[in-house]
Amino acid sequence: MSKFFKVAIIGAGNVAWHLARAFENSGHFITEIYSRHLSSARELAKRLYDTNVTDSLDMSESPAEIFLIAVSDNATEHVSSLLKIPPYGIVAHTSGTQSLELLSRYHDNTGIFYPLQTFTKGISVGFKEVPICIEAVHKSTQEVLFTLGGSISDEVYSINSEDRKVIHIAAVFACNFGNHMLSIAQDILEEHDIDFGILQPLIVETVNKALTVGPAEAQTGPAKRGDDTILNEHLKFLKYEPAFKKIYKLLSEHLKNSYS
Amino acid sequence: MSKFFKVAIIGAGNVAWHLARAFENSGHFITEIYSRHLSSARELAKRLYDTNVTDSLDMSESPAEIFLIAVSDNATEHVSSLLKIPPYGIVAHTSGTQSLELLSRYHDNTGIFYPLQTFTKGISVGFKEVPICIEAVHKSTQEVLFTLGGSISDEVYSINSEDRKVIHIAAVFACNFGNHMLSIAQDILEEHDIDFGILQPLIVETVNKALTVGPAEAQTGPAKRGDDTILNEHLKFLKYEPAFKKIYKLLSEHLKNSYS
Repeated sequence: MSKFFKVAIIGAGNVAWHLARAFENSGHFITEIYSRHLSSARELAKRLYDTNVTDSLDMSESPAEIFLIAVSDNATEHVSSLLKIPPYGIVAHTSGTQSLELLSRYHDNTGIFYPLQTFTKGISVGFKEVPICIEAVHKSTQEVLFTLGGSISDEVYSINSEDRKVIHIAAVFACNFGNHMLSIAQDILEEHDIDFGILQPLIVETVNKALTVGPAEAQTGPAKRGDDTILNEHLKFLKYEPAFKKIYKLLSEHLKNSYS
Repeated sequence: MSKFFKVAIIGAGNVAWHLARAFENSGHFITEIYSRHLSSARELAKRLYDTNVTDSLDMSESPAEIFLIAVSDNATEHVSSLLKIPPYGIVAHTSGTQSLELLSRYHDNTGIFYPLQTFTKGISVGFKEVPICIEAVHKSTQEVLFTLGGSISDEVYSINSEDRKVIHIAAVFACNFGNHMLSIAQDILEEHDIDFGILQPLIVETVNKALTVGPAEAQTGPAKRGDDTILNEHLKFLKYEPAFKKIYKLLSEHLKNSYS
């Protein structure tokens, strides 16, 4: 197999949208884009050089060497079970949560190609620093996926399913829950007619500091100091929104205990 | 009063450290640095041009026009009560949480000069974008503090004590709790011998997206999707650390309800 691969992409969502372009930019060929909705496949194909679109999962005549399933988590198994590919083709999925077994139940050469990043159509991503987590049943498949990953990113890792789960749970805390803390902050400010933008420099600096010296070292605030007067004042204030109060109480207690 | 002020800084901690330099860079004069520990005051004074150090709060002979109290929150009132200044001097503090009354109980011309940022000695801060929240008893004092703030930052706001509290509570969620989510992520990864650095590109992109399109619009993940299979798998995994499990449960439930 050459260093440039022929890749069929199953899916036309956020991940497919970004990976297809990144692969082309690194010299690979996107042979097909599959989507249940041909219009979505066409929309993505328009951004590429010379790519067919299809709404059929019978790809047994495809020239592709790698079939990358980039659909929503709960559709992965269904798509895997229906997908027909030529012999020796590799089937990989891009999910942080789905097992490798969902693929190997139906296919011979299977792997995982999980880019650890949050993707949104229309917001460009610098792939060079995006960690690509690779797992594969066969060593030869693993090598192909490493070559593919290494062509778009400098950070390609061999990560087994157990560690992938650990990374995903950590990402839920750092990113989903961290982002939810920003949402709650925005709610509280807007409830009092204050623009969320006033927190922007503080948020940027907090994250910079956490990534420079580590989040534990960077922590500040009343809970870390164990300042019960302020904590009680804040809880009293939050009575108007019991859910926020409950979250404030649990997190400040945990924070306080972590640093005492 | 001229546009360049003579400022005495009471305190030699993180906030004093950064403000003193920022004031000098904008043409003001730092007349004195006070610290209980003369050595701390000397350490800061060494970074300035021509500044006296003192461990006495009797500043009644000081040439300063503004006396800025930048000590830890719980020392603010004690320092305010002992501070002696010349007539017509302005006393202001830099705390996000302490009241104006702690000053006006002991002094005539009082105000608040609260820079909404997290400061660490040795990590430089670009002040131009740091919001400075001003409050004062008298209009003339407010004008002086606005002029002082406007000389170091483009973002100077008149913020009353009630709104200052709202901003502080929002900052606790966005920054202290947001940072704590990063700490927990780091703990989970290191418990399994995975380097926290693997999450860095994802964390940076998550915050960029939140600040670009807003955190509610930017939210992703299993809780937002209401993917109970994944949520239960994660809770099962977190059994080894009941505190993390409790936090995961509360936040994912709240997140799920917020988007359903």
